[in-house]
Amino acid sequence: MEEIRLIEVKEDIMSDNDAVAKSIRHRLAEAKTFLINLMASPGAGKTSLILKTHALLKKDIRIGVIEADIDSMVDAEKVAAQGAAAVQLKTGGFCHVDAAMVQKGLNNMNLGDLDLIIVENVGNLVCPAEFDIGESKKVMILSVPEGDDKPLKYPLMFSVCDVLVVNKIDYLHMSDFDIEAMRERVLSLNPGIKIFEVSSKTGEGIEAWANWLKGEVISFVTTD
Amino acid sequence: MEEIRLIEVKEDIMSDNDAVAKSIRHRLAEAKTFLINLMASPGAGKTSLILKTHALLKKDIRIGVIEADIDSMVDAEKVAAQGAAAVQLKTGGFCHVDAAMVQKGLNNMNLGDLDLIIVENVGNLVCPAEFDIGESKKVMILSVPEGDDKPLKYPLMFSVCDVLVVNKIDYLHMSDFDIEAMRERVLSLNPGIKIFEVSSKTGEGIEAWANWLKGEVISFVTTD
Repeated sequence: MEEIRLIEVKEDIMSDNDAVAKSIRHRLAEAKTFLINLMASPGAGKTSLILKTHALLKKDIRIGVIEADIDSMVDAEKVAAQGAAAVQLKTGGFCHVDAAMVQKGLNNMNLGDLDLIIVENVGNLVCPAEFDIGESKKVMILSVPEGDDKPLKYPLMFSVCDVLVVNKIDYLHMSDFDIEAMRERVLSLNPGIKIFEVSSKTGEGIEAWANWLKGEVISFVTTD
Repeated sequence: MEEIRLIEVKEDIMSDNDAVAKSIRHRLAEAKTFLINLMASPGAGKTSLILKTHALLKKDIRIGVIEADIDSMVDAEKVAAQGAAAVQLKTGGFCHVDAAMVQKGLNNMNLGDLDLIIVENVGNLVCPAEFDIGESKKVMILSVPEGDDKPLKYPLMFSVCDVLVVNKIDYLHMSDFDIEAMRERVLSLNPGIKIFEVSSKTGEGIEAWANWLKGEVISFVTTD
């Protein structure tokens, strides 16, 4: 009984969510603003990747950030300190960002002034994977200390993302993380996924990721 | 509207869950079996800590493990290979273990043969914190690579746990993790929490944790 009731509600929520996501996608196409939904476990390095990406790309494209946290402002403060337009969403007890929350975030930003908005989702490899937030691309981070078996355990997240950023590769030398085994697991779930290997700490690989992102944004904002 | 509907259902689920948790707690008291609810982010080292703990304590107490994963058997296989009684729960899309799932797991174990059962929850710092599964103690792991700011971002998890195991302290020398700042943040949320610092890889600190756990189990199973 319990499971059936939960699933019914989930379907209602999902269908409401998909309608809002669709309207966000339309709004962003009009405004020519590219939206990234950035997902990862707690501590995988979402905020650090945003800071590094912003530092590299801010001269070329105008970037805003929507930070989502259950109960804290620390990420938005870090991002704003570096000069990005930042909005903080407090999700209360919610374990993911849904389209309605993003809609509220967008209402507090000037889309005409932004080419790219990055939504930093709640740290969680499960729930965020199920919600369309109207994004242009879904991007996830897997950090080396989490282990190479994560695609086996959280297959939906690895299946729905357009891009996987493998972060903290500076930890590879002191870890048993098998990057080839991880790649095979991810590609068997999602053959079209794009994979970048980076270290936000040392900067290795960040440029390749940032250049790819810049290309996507420019192509999006210059399309008629 | 959407939020109100979700909260109502959550309350129903929670109240059903609490009733099942209560019956589990009663059943375990009768059987004299101690239950640990082990929670953490993906990749923080739940399975490794279970393996190390089992290796140290198996001569003194009889240990079973309930592994919960969305879709994989790898953890149960590792644990069973080391000789622990293991049950795998596949949670489907669910992002946490609830009491009904644990009840099903217990139905597949011989409680009379077990002093301690460890439930390895789904890797997630959000949802599992909300569900009573009839456990004797809630234990969480925070691993050093996740960062010292996690108590600020996932306060409920740090507030509800009886024990915090800080894992991967062998990474401290190459990290900016401030262990004193983390301790202060955790203790301000939860002054009664017990904190152990360990490395499942090097074995440092594991004995202190295992000795504490053994003392709790023996005290529980020998109480009239």
